[in-house]
Amino acid sequence: MSEKRTEIAELGEFGLIERINIVSPRQNLTSLKGIGDDAAIIDIGQENLLVSTDMLVEGTHFDLSYIPLPHLGYKAVAVNVSDIAAMNGKPEQIVVSLGLSNRFSVEAIEALYEGIRSACINYKVDLVGGDTTASPSGLIISITIIGRAKKDKTVLRSGGHPNDIICVTGDLGAAYLGLQVLEREKEVFRANPSMQPDLEKYQYLVGRQLKPEARMDIVYDLQEKQIVPTSMIDISDGLASELFHLVKNSKVGVKLFEDKIPVDSVAYDTAIEFKIDPITAALNGGEDYELLFTIHPSDFEKLKNHSDIHFIGHMHNNPQQNVMLSKHGTVVPLQAQGWKHF
Amino acid sequence: MSEKRTEIAELGEFGLIERINIVSPRQNLTSLKGIGDDAAIIDIGQENLLVSTDMLVEGTHFDLSYIPLPHLGYKAVAVNVSDIAAMNGKPEQIVVSLGLSNRFSVEAIEALYEGIRSACINYKVDLVGGDTTASPSGLIISITIIGRAKKDKTVLRSGGHPNDIICVTGDLGAAYLGLQVLEREKEVFRANPSMQPDLEKYQYLVGRQLKPEARMDIVYDLQEKQIVPTSMIDISDGLASELFHLVKNSKVGVKLFEDKIPVDSVAYDTAIEFKIDPITAALNGGEDYELLFTIHPSDFEKLKNHSDIHFIGHMHNNPQQNVMLSKHGTVVPLQAQGWKHF
Repeated sequence: MSEKRTEIAELGEFGLIERINIVSPRQNLTSLKGIGDDAAIIDIGQENLLVSTDMLVEGTHFDLSYIPLPHLGYKAVAVNVSDIAAMNGKPEQIVVSLGLSNRFSVEAIEALYEGIRSACINYKVDLVGGDTTASPSGLIISITIIGRAKKDKTVLRSGGHPNDIICVTGDLGAAYLGLQVLEREKEVFRANPSMQPDLEKYQYLVGRQLKPEARMDIVYDLQEKQIVPTSMIDISDGLASELFHLVKNSKVGVKLFEDKIPVDSVAYDTAIEFKIDPITAALNGGEDYELLFTIHPSDFEKLKNHSDIHFIGHMHNNPQQNVMLSKHGTVVPLQAQGWKHF
Repeated sequence: MSEKRTEIAELGEFGLIERINIVSPRQNLTSLKGIGDDAAIIDIGQENLLVSTDMLVEGTHFDLSYIPLPHLGYKAVAVNVSDIAAMNGKPEQIVVSLGLSNRFSVEAIEALYEGIRSACINYKVDLVGGDTTASPSGLIISITIIGRAKKDKTVLRSGGHPNDIICVTGDLGAAYLGLQVLEREKEVFRANPSMQPDLEKYQYLVGRQLKPEARMDIVYDLQEKQIVPTSMIDISDGLASELFHLVKNSKVGVKLFEDKIPVDSVAYDTAIEFKIDPITAALNGGEDYELLFTIHPSDFEKLKNHSDIHFIGHMHNNPQQNVMLSKHGTVVPLQAQGWKHF
């Protein structure tokens, strides 16, 4: 008798998550929201506690041949802070677990913590606990972050409405293109170790890949302007994939305008150099850690002059119709590729 | 120029933790207690929020050739619940991150989650989030647990006083001996795959290793009897090692009585069979996940008839003198070995 064996790759990451997340009856009234948003929500009285966790695994999420350990530590914290930002919350504490092989010296771990602490200072977060353990191979960093948001200011993926304006911060695709540059330089170096990588031209892209920042500045800007987004998510897997999370949860459809999607000029040129459509890089690249959110049309006036927020489309009432108006005036269906780790 | 390289093994786990835990100035008033107890403490108003995290790595903490996946899932939750119990708290939520190689099928992951969910039901905990990612090799389980305790009922490692009575729950050394049995059977099976392991006799020990329980029952018993321990810790690294944490934090010394240390009879016999001193197994074995706590002498009357709490010694005012009165009437110094993963 052979037991059934289903490969993870058959389901993909999202399919796997759906299959294992059998919703169990809630056992604590304090558990307000579980799996399915950027952070879980726990009731602590006047405020919501926000909890999110991310695991970074060597060989899957990073390659130590090109990311310096302090940058890696910084990034590991920033990606967690980004999840709290995506709930319109304020990060406050992290716990850090490390799995380490004996390949790592004490000095290497100190370099990693240097980056972790630097991010903690920057984002005003306290490192309050953790676990350090041996790993037979490679480095594993697992961080859980705790944040807070006022009850009426907590933003979910599910609050979008038809006619809401879709906003995105910063620019998209650069982190993905930075990764392509790093991978190429690594190959060049392998073939000829005397070659020095010339990354000068790609500095911005490489920086976006190696040292992303969580957009807490935007959370504070929105707060100052007294705007509460109707829905929000951070862009870790690519604009298209995150948009699909918003429309699925908000039960709406979206229409994007290709010419409104922000792409940095170096990212644009580099995409062309790599024979990648710049918009494809922006839609599916991932790891930009920008914020994607929707606002009620009445809030547009207050936000329209913000230098780093772009209005890329709107929501509408047909969930079956997720489209992009291309630069050529044609309407193309949106597709979410996202990251495939498995 | 060569940079200095210090091996982790030179410092050991505790040495490493001390070196990387440079205490940074606190940035959030809500961060009441950071690294250095079983859980961090976060201020949420009337109550304390307790946060703890544990990472289990294949090849370091478990061997899938003898631990069934549902048991592993259960254990991963139980060891986290045990940290909340050690603060005299009530566990409420967990987030679970998994790193998985493609060696694992979807069915295998479902089996792991079956154990996780079973522990959640047993300990009344909600699974509210997580992260699932690919790992180039092996299985990694990282769980962060969130619990609560009343402010005046939260128990630290640091509250012990001279004359406090040292209490321990259950029995000690069995989990370690269960591991020895499993390792031996694995060797026998390797040498001769047609041999069926005979674990019947060692069922209790193997169960203690593969499916430990967090002692939430004791937390509820203490609550019912209106006893707040003066200090508490859970026994993950062995009685001696945990006692040293209590005395170091409470700035006291301890005197143990060898004949009071609870050792199960099968554990005793198996230790002899393995040519291990049963008391050494109890003192240094680890993974028992029992509670070690101290009470004010005036609480002894209320607790003395509890069937599963043992009074093994007392604290005194000389931190330099940590000793055990042996069965032979000699006074021997206590030594903490603990686990060495590195």
